[in-house]
Amino acid sequence: MKKEILLRCHKEIKPYIHRTPILTSQAINRMSGADIHFKCENFQKGGAYKIRGATNAVLQLTEEQKKNGVVTHSSGNFAQALSLAAKNFGIDAFIVMPATAPQVKKDAVAEYGGNIIECEPTLAAREAAAQKIEQETGAKFIHPSNNKKVLIGQGTAGMELLEEQPDLNFIIAPVGGGGLIAGTSLAAHYFGNACKVIGAEPFEVDDAFRSLKSGKIESNETTNTIADGLKTQLGDKSFPIIQKYVDSIIRVTEDEIINAMRLIWERMKIVVEPSSAVALAAVLSDKDQFAGKKVGIIVSGGNVDLKKLLF
Amino acid sequence: MKKEILLRCHKEIKPYIHRTPILTSQAINRMSGADIHFKCENFQKGGAYKIRGATNAVLQLTEEQKKNGVVTHSSGNFAQALSLAAKNFGIDAFIVMPATAPQVKKDAVAEYGGNIIECEPTLAAREAAAQKIEQETGAKFIHPSNNKKVLIGQGTAGMELLEEQPDLNFIIAPVGGGGLIAGTSLAAHYFGNACKVIGAEPFEVDDAFRSLKSGKIESNETTNTIADGLKTQLGDKSFPIIQKYVDSIIRVTEDEIINAMRLIWERMKIVVEPSSAVALAAVLSDKDQFAGKKVGIIVSGGNVDLKKLLF
Repeated sequence: MKKEILLRCHKEIKPYIHRTPILTSQAINRMSGADIHFKCENFQKGGAYKIRGATNAVLQLTEEQKKNGVVTHSSGNFAQALSLAAKNFGIDAFIVMPATAPQVKKDAVAEYGGNIIECEPTLAAREAAAQKIEQETGAKFIHPSNNKKVLIGQGTAGMELLEEQPDLNFIIAPVGGGGLIAGTSLAAHYFGNACKVIGAEPFEVDDAFRSLKSGKIESNETTNTIADGLKTQLGDKSFPIIQKYVDSIIRVTEDEIINAMRLIWERMKIVVEPSSAVALAAVLSDKDQFAGKKVGIIVSGGNVDLKKLLF
Repeated sequence: MKKEILLRCHKEIKPYIHRTPILTSQAINRMSGADIHFKCENFQKGGAYKIRGATNAVLQLTEEQKKNGVVTHSSGNFAQALSLAAKNFGIDAFIVMPATAPQVKKDAVAEYGGNIIECEPTLAAREAAAQKIEQETGAKFIHPSNNKKVLIGQGTAGMELLEEQPDLNFIIAPVGGGGLIAGTSLAAHYFGNACKVIGAEPFEVDDAFRSLKSGKIESNETTNTIADGLKTQLGDKSFPIIQKYVDSIIRVTEDEIINAMRLIWERMKIVVEPSSAVALAAVLSDKDQFAGKKVGIIVSGGNVDLKKLLF
């Protein structure tokens, strides 16, 4: 049944998203020993895969719900994605962001027509502010990752990758809130040919790695990583899917992330955010597993603050 | 007759080059008021358009000449391009580089199999060193820009652009030694539909602008520009073509170059070198001329030293 849900979702969101290109790099293949296919969601509308899930969530609102709009809390790519998805359907988007979020991110949300509500920079404050909006406006709350419609939408990137490269042995995706990896693992299960899905995570925020070990959702005590999209933790919608369909999680160091990011920028001439580089870093850190294999990597996005570049 | 030469060149070099994609950006179109088509030679082999001309020059060597290889002096993209082109045909490439050239550039040339000969960082020293190699080895000297076979080869990027977008009103290309702009202007003359070619140049190295005014090849007294590929001056092979077929030269400030470069990186998610950003900077600095027009931009390359980023 999920197979049909994925297919229907892809068909319905298609008019609102880009079919992103799949790129390869001879140089990176030489270095890794693998045959890597990069699904470039950095070229996606809004600069990241998030528009896929956001569009699916908005598409499935009832007409009644559409009148009141949608609300989320995000300081990252989902904030822009939901604003854009809502705009495409002429509905309101309320975006709860920490007052401390970079101006460049607030500007991007405003550019896509989102209504920004600022709050204190804590998860509790974000959730409270979103709940307040929900009660006051009747807007439907859409969680950035822990929402079935969202994670199904995120899975369509992997579906497109497998449509063009049906015999991938692996797909690697970064793990933050778990929406992308959960959706990708469903896509690989239903559309792959024994294709294993592996999550990539910084050691500094290895909640998914620990959650799979312990069998319950673990949280991160610290978030000292440049992969700012991956600081969130798994949720009750994404975790069971990840437990069932994700093969394993590979953890990487901050140096490995920076090196992989520079490699992609220098060799492939594309701008990717640190979270995306985590997936290539995972392949390079475990060459034995991937040598001679056909590997897909979901390049999750390209939204970086160039003024804060680390190298 | 030149039309046939261009067509033959394109056919012959095709197996050795990438057909690079043409990208657009809604955001940049909104900002500029123009309909811009970016020919992305940053994705070209060696990271720049230079492989086109280098390959054409190597292809047309006699069998006797091939035995002795080729020699050039360049610290930039042509050094890598000629090394790669020579390697593709199994012949020797001698590359004269200033001893002070960044290690990353020397490494790139070595990676492509070029033999590096170091010299003092002056034009006179470079020319003398190249001449010495020529005499000692019999290698054929290939100038990076002031060579008819090279500039014909560089024109093939514009040919491909016009093949896909035949009704461009303008093509803008950066001007350094003049090989790219000369080749592009020939391509537009023979394959465009009243398509004007405009050169883009930093104010800091505006030798082409001044040369077109004075009617003779002018040189640059200073070279204070981040567009390091554009510091060279026109030659006797490129200048007459530029005089005949290039419509005008637009000059831009260093700030305009940096802004255009950041715009391309942020909005298009591609890595381009400052020289390439000069062309977009020219369009943005003269919006009246390009408003409502269909404009092609040759994105010359994507080889930047990420460690030295200016923003």
